[in-house]
Amino acid sequence: MKISKALITLADPNQRSLPLQTLIDQKGIKRSALEIVLEETFSTGIEEVCLIVCPDSQASYQNAAGVYSNRIHFIEQPKPTGYAQAIQLGKEFTGDHPFLHIVGDHLCVSDESMSCAKQVVAIAEKNNASVSGVQATRENQISDFGAVGGKLVDRLQGLYEIQNVVEKPTPTQAELELLVPGLRAGYYLCFFGIHVLKPSIFGILNTTTAIDGPDGRSLSYALNELAKREKLLALEVSGRRYDIGSDYGLLFAQLALSFSGKDRDRVVTSILELLANRPSS
Amino acid sequence: MKISKALITLADPNQRSLPLQTLIDQKGIKRSALEIVLEETFSTGIEEVCLIVCPDSQASYQNAAGVYSNRIHFIEQPKPTGYAQAIQLGKEFTGDHPFLHIVGDHLCVSDESMSCAKQVVAIAEKNNASVSGVQATRENQISDFGAVGGKLVDRLQGLYEIQNVVEKPTPTQAELELLVPGLRAGYYLCFFGIHVLKPSIFGILNTTTAIDGPDGRSLSYALNELAKREKLLALEVSGRRYDIGSDYGLLFAQLALSFSGKDRDRVVTSILELLANRPSS
Repeated sequence: MKISKALITLADPNQRSLPLQTLIDQKGIKRSALEIVLEETFSTGIEEVCLIVCPDSQASYQNAAGVYSNRIHFIEQPKPTGYAQAIQLGKEFTGDHPFLHIVGDHLCVSDESMSCAKQVVAIAEKNNASVSGVQATRENQISDFGAVGGKLVDRLQGLYEIQNVVEKPTPTQAELELLVPGLRAGYYLCFFGIHVLKPSIFGILNTTTAIDGPDGRSLSYALNELAKREKLLALEVSGRRYDIGSDYGLLFAQLALSFSGKDRDRVVTSILELLANRPSS
Repeated sequence: MKISKALITLADPNQRSLPLQTLIDQKGIKRSALEIVLEETFSTGIEEVCLIVCPDSQASYQNAAGVYSNRIHFIEQPKPTGYAQAIQLGKEFTGDHPFLHIVGDHLCVSDESMSCAKQVVAIAEKNNASVSGVQATRENQISDFGAVGGKLVDRLQGLYEIQNVVEKPTPTQAELELLVPGLRAGYYLCFFGIHVLKPSIFGILNTTTAIDGPDGRSLSYALNELAKREKLLALEVSGRRYDIGSDYGLLFAQLALSFSGKDRDRVVTSILELLANRPSS
């Protein structure tokens, strides 16, 4: 299976300014958050990319897309009817093809030369299956994410077969439903914000998005259904993701980029100067 | 003399997204850069505030102004004709009153309970004179700022009388024209981005903005003229300013806010975890 299309969701009107935030990437180049997400997306080799956006944001996002501004498509989500429905709108773009889906409010830093998105795409193409990127996440933070339970497929690759998916579980719920063999105690597999999905997800979304309330708005709920019907893998991505919509998410994303980039020494030195409260200029 | 009006310049179209950048303030509250600059401005007690902006930015800035959105006025600078001309446009708003001027691309953190802008306003009102906030700046960084030469008025207060102003001086130029008694060797007084100006500045700007080239676009050139005609003081502000338009300026502004705020421990801990490359979640 070959992945040739990507959907990026950016339609939450409360996070309208998130893609416009400015960061400095690992090469020391000033980039919008959107441009960094697009770089991650295009790093997979995928050339057809569509952004699901809220109304009246297209012009500013087109501008923030920088070098990618002429290489992206847009679909508007007219009302804030939820994340699942935003993805469902993407069917118009992806058609009957498997597609890469990246959430627009996460930035990630790979621990290896292959980008995080590329790792997920490679596993999906190799296994001819839907794959969700995941990250082992400490119990006290799982209530911010979708989390998965499943069985180990390949320890070396960090590959699992997902048996169930729970959106923002409580620790008790996680202990009952989401224990995964091989993980450190107190850790669970939470979504990384990168998925490869087969078009069968749209049939499920047709049903689930009709449900009133959080289940209908949640991708996790639909993925839980998908896992019951066909193979859905989870790949522990070699890297880290930062939710830039969360408190200090932007700061930690910037620091993660800088600490793994060319300006590491300069940034670390300036932080120490700031901490010592000595003028750095 | 009582200061009752303030002008904030935000008209550089290349920095259109700067006021929309998101930071977390010292109280741990998510704020746009614009909202933080407005908080600094209103901290002085001044109630009449006008933003000089580039075309088509008013709606997004009004939105980014948060709690201050109904308390600000706007003047558009139709074309990017420079910083000095942006201030000149403010005459329509300030009339014949002295006014506070804050640059919209700097964030500052005070070392004391009185805000940086309030320190400058207090000295201007007490001395019945124009005052530029300054910061002792290391020689290798002065080419980014306007710098002043002058004589010491009050060492304890860090108060100087400005004799000349040079925009972005070279180290050689600084050594010849900008030596200031009492400063550490290799340091010069550079602008903080906060001024109180008497309306006589507009008469000078009428002449200087007619000059083609950098002098005509520069506030420093006009302030150099002002210093020759009437008293212009420089106050070493007790605090630090961060140019968020410069490389890593946003990062260091955020860190300075966090290191002096309620989340200091949390942020320092997370930085150490990131540096050690251990997952923090």
